[in-house]
Amino acid sequence: MTECIPSYTPLEDTGFGYTLSLINGKYKMIIMYWLYEKNVMRFNEMQRCIGNISFRTLSNTLKELERDGLITRKEYPQIPPKVEYRLSEKGQSLIPLLDMMCQWGEQNKPS
Amino acid sequence: MTECIPSYTPLEDTGFGYTLSLINGKYKMIIMYWLYEKNVMRFNEMQRCIGNISFRTLSNTLKELERDGLITRKEYPQIPPKVEYRLSEKGQSLIPLLDMMCQWGEQNKPS
Repeated sequence: MTECIPSYTPLEDTGFGYTLSLINGKYKMIIMYWLYEKNVMRFNEMQRCIGNISFRTLSNTLKELERDGLITRKEYPQIPPKVEYRLSEKGQSLIPLLDMMCQWGEQNKPS
Repeated sequence: MTECIPSYTPLEDTGFGYTLSLINGKYKMIIMYWLYEKNVMRFNEMQRCIGNISFRTLSNTLKELERDGLITRKEYPQIPPKVEYRLSEKGQSLIPLLDMMCQWGEQNKPS
């Protein structure tokens, strides 16, 4: 725990800050949950499921998730192109934490 | 879980978003950890322990933590004034989640 307290360390260099940076925002958690439910998804299917997300936002968020190693992207060399997204092992390991955040929030948020 | 996916709900109205809003930033987590370690702390002691935090930032962060019900503030009517801060029960219940975020981050952040 002690090494996690960033007194003189920038937040992003601590374990806590790193975790926070990966899950911050609205869509990362949503996408990870959908992939967790469905196992494999294609771009269009994801956009349909999430509903109100633009092509650009979804595309950028997927790129960040891939860069951070939370999802994998597999492209098949065919016409029309087919691209599949999956949770990586690292991404899978975040699910219990997302669950905990959801549950704690549901139990504690003012109604 | 499903009610936690904020497709058409603003993030802050979901359990996940509520939790995120309470722990976001650098100092909330630090203050909560110190209170968890020490049980009771006074303002000056806290400022010393945290190190590089201004009076104003610490004061504002404590006010937010108190407003969100994560800490309690007890003022003793004496000269010189004495004010004690403690984790509330709600604040205590967040500690396992902070632990999990620290641990996951330490294990997974690129070195």
